[in-house]
Amino acid sequence: VRRGPPKPTPPLPEIRRYYHAALEFADLAQRVVRAGLARGLTRRRKPDLSLVTNVDLTVERALRRAIASRFPNHGIAGEEFPPSHPGAPWQWIIDPIDGTLGLSHGLPLYGTILGLWFHGQALVGVIDHPELGTRYSAARGLGAFRNGIRFRLKDVPRGGLADEIVSAADRTRFRQCGKAGAFDLLLRRHRQVRGYYDCIAHSWAAEGSIGAVVDFGVRLWDIAATQVLVEEAGGSYLLASQRGQGSEGVYGIIAGKPRTVRWLRRLFRV
Amino acid sequence: VRRGPPKPTPPLPEIRRYYHAALEFADLAQRVVRAGLARGLTRRRKPDLSLVTNVDLTVERALRRAIASRFPNHGIAGEEFPPSHPGAPWQWIIDPIDGTLGLSHGLPLYGTILGLWFHGQALVGVIDHPELGTRYSAARGLGAFRNGIRFRLKDVPRGGLADEIVSAADRTRFRQCGKAGAFDLLLRRHRQVRGYYDCIAHSWAAEGSIGAVVDFGVRLWDIAATQVLVEEAGGSYLLASQRGQGSEGVYGIIAGKPRTVRWLRRLFRV
Repeated sequence: VRRGPPKPTPPLPEIRRYYHAALEFADLAQRVVRAGLARGLTRRRKPDLSLVTNVDLTVERALRRAIASRFPNHGIAGEEFPPSHPGAPWQWIIDPIDGTLGLSHGLPLYGTILGLWFHGQALVGVIDHPELGTRYSAARGLGAFRNGIRFRLKDVPRGGLADEIVSAADRTRFRQCGKAGAFDLLLRRHRQVRGYYDCIAHSWAAEGSIGAVVDFGVRLWDIAATQVLVEEAGGSYLLASQRGQGSEGVYGIIAGKPRTVRWLRRLFRV
Repeated sequence: VRRGPPKPTPPLPEIRRYYHAALEFADLAQRVVRAGLARGLTRRRKPDLSLVTNVDLTVERALRRAIASRFPNHGIAGEEFPPSHPGAPWQWIIDPIDGTLGLSHGLPLYGTILGLWFHGQALVGVIDHPELGTRYSAARGLGAFRNGIRFRLKDVPRGGLADEIVSAADRTRFRQCGKAGAFDLLLRRHRQVRGYYDCIAHSWAAEGSIGAVVDFGVRLWDIAATQVLVEEAGGSYLLASQRGQGSEGVYGIIAGKPRTVRWLRRLFRV
């Protein structure tokens, strides 16, 4: 999410190689999640009061080890540990478990998020939902895939916005980004607002089963895969707010079907 | 949801017989849903502007035929067709597809709801989620089951309300029940409000993976299975608002873990 002159995009064969590596890392994460859940969850509270479980930590440790061993010069930024090689042009951004609270209560919607960014631009993205058995993956120029099958989202037909589900939740985070008013307006203007929250909303926005996700007050690892997934699927991605940089930043995004995103962009005045 | 002097509860073996019949009806619904999805969805709009698909209609027709053939004296009230035997003491309440909009967009959260009510009291309830592969079922005095395995929900530990997910969505329907103010207050007071909506929120409230579901402005078939599921799982169920009677009525409910329901009862002043 750094700004500046456009950076050269690596050639497709190189992107494909990283894409396949990302899928292998997602396989690894899935195995570690399953083994961790089989052993049982222990939860504790982080200094920011959010929850973390032994599974979050084990998955991030395993991913960091695998990435560092395969790509020793790449940086890694993840939710649970300090960044490594923060100045490197290639950065793996990982959220070992996005949706920890849901996981700790037994909800099946959590997922592992992996993104590979090059000079601040996402080139590869994976969101894996082990319990739903669905994986969304994409690479710049190669397309977007659901369980390995390429998909494109369909835009909303003209006049069809009323039936589009918009996912938005946790008013507190909208308020922290100065968007409480727009959030309230959305709930008054649109009947089909759901709060699916977390990565499942990003996955469903990418595949077009919801019209859009609006997510404010999130961190880099929460959106590490979203832009490349949504754009490679033919959708629109809008970085709607940003405070701070890189893994220190707090972001707001709107992503999904082009017509829904244009409408929300006006409603949120971004 | 009729009031009056308490009616005799049928003996357990009779309830068990109806429970097994309900499970067979849910199996039938699942087969018809799968066959319908394989043939493809066609959607149209009902007079109230909500959506209905060919699958909704086919499932309700199949269920009505099966119920009428097995229990010719029982009443049937469903979302898509007029009631039959509306005065009978035994009433099957069915929502062939709850979550039609989501289904028509490809979301996996929809379900079939079946309830058997006796003199206005739910004795048997089933919510079946064909795409998630989870079925929640319960019968009065026999317990609550997830995919056939008995479960009980755990109440919230003292001081643990902040981590409880509450599902509430569609502000319009809260407003129609005079509860827009309480809905807004909930979103301001509680961070973990999600809008999972539809029957999946009722299922997750019954199993305790969310703290509670708050659902206002719903119809009888939307809540046909909820009370018996939640209560047999050890949770609390509150009929929080009612306008009209039986299949003509519009209802509001709060259901889930006892401590969460008590807190929401105060917040919604019911």
